[in-house]
Amino acid sequence: MTSTLLTIKFLQQPTSTQWVEQAIANLDTILLDHSHCERKAAGVALNLIFRYPSSAKLVRTLTAIAQEELEHFEQVNQWLDRRDIPLAPLSAPPYAAGLKAEIRRHEPDRMLDLLLVSGLIEARSHERLGLLAAHCPEVELAQFYRGLMASEARHYGIYWTLATTYFERAVVMERLESLAAVESQLLSTLYPEPRIHS
Amino acid sequence: MTSTLLTIKFLQQPTSTQWVEQAIANLDTILLDHSHCERKAAGVALNLIFRYPSSAKLVRTLTAIAQEELEHFEQVNQWLDRRDIPLAPLSAPPYAAGLKAEIRRHEPDRMLDLLLVSGLIEARSHERLGLLAAHCPEVELAQFYRGLMASEARHYGIYWTLATTYFERAVVMERLESLAAVESQLLSTLYPEPRIHS
Repeated sequence: MTSTLLTIKFLQQPTSTQWVEQAIANLDTILLDHSHCERKAAGVALNLIFRYPSSAKLVRTLTAIAQEELEHFEQVNQWLDRRDIPLAPLSAPPYAAGLKAEIRRHEPDRMLDLLLVSGLIEARSHERLGLLAAHCPEVELAQFYRGLMASEARHYGIYWTLATTYFERAVVMERLESLAAVESQLLSTLYPEPRIHS
Repeated sequence: MTSTLLTIKFLQQPTSTQWVEQAIANLDTILLDHSHCERKAAGVALNLIFRYPSSAKLVRTLTAIAQEELEHFEQVNQWLDRRDIPLAPLSAPPYAAGLKAEIRRHEPDRMLDLLLVSGLIEARSHERLGLLAAHCPEVELAQFYRGLMASEARHYGIYWTLATTYFERAVVMERLESLAAVESQLLSTLYPEPRIHS
């Protein structure tokens, strides 16, 4: 499946122009939130490895993802440093908690949901970093976002591949459609604070 | 403080010859457990970053540690692959849980304890990988263990430095002495299954 087709499967609704305006008007907060997102993405990959320690393909590919997310975390933190933005906690928009609530409790459903929710978050991050790259008025920062986009696309491709490794393709497609609807719904009302997933 | 002096501070009792014999007689299980240890070490560093997201020095140095632990995890898993040892869960010896029970619940005590317990585990891993390097009859595997030792030493040095960054040196020394006593005590009875921390 090509990357474009995968994007359409993962994202039922594109990001609104309101989000782009909110983000571009608050680049410092977006950078700080982005740092939290990269750290959380590394945590998500590592948690999956902890939960499924015997699934060799999952362990191998998610180790690589966790490493890459930590590299990005480090890079975003260097941007924060350069702009004198101190590291600080930020309130979370309802996005991740809303998706987490959809994860079914029993195996093997849980594994499928965890993989697809992770893929959805990566797909949305890919789309939004692309929007930041396109609209950011600061050339160097725009280039940085463009550089990260390719990895994010690879990541949701990996989550998709893992889902179809451990589950029937038809089952994956059907569940993805339902989770993708929730994902778009969660973003249909803009969170009042600027966030990567507001 | 030199590395040797630090080792003496961290480890009150050296590892017994019984542990060495148990480990060398069960190298496959030790390798599998080592894989779990590297993954857990990455998790410990990442959890500390999650818990103290505003502590810039902690975030920066532990990001590097988490990355390195994931590299080692990957390397150990390649050894497992080469020896046809499938990834699988293993029962945990009482070591980590026993140390965790010592961590005080309230800040700032908790931060100090988390840093020192992490340092203690790294120091013990350093000692034991050194013993494996010295006694392992397989030349290539012995070299692999020798290669990892240097990182482990650097890691407990970093946990020590972080502790003395955020806390008074005298407070750190006193607490370390008490935790180090517990750490040696926990290893005074050999766990019947071969483990890195049996």
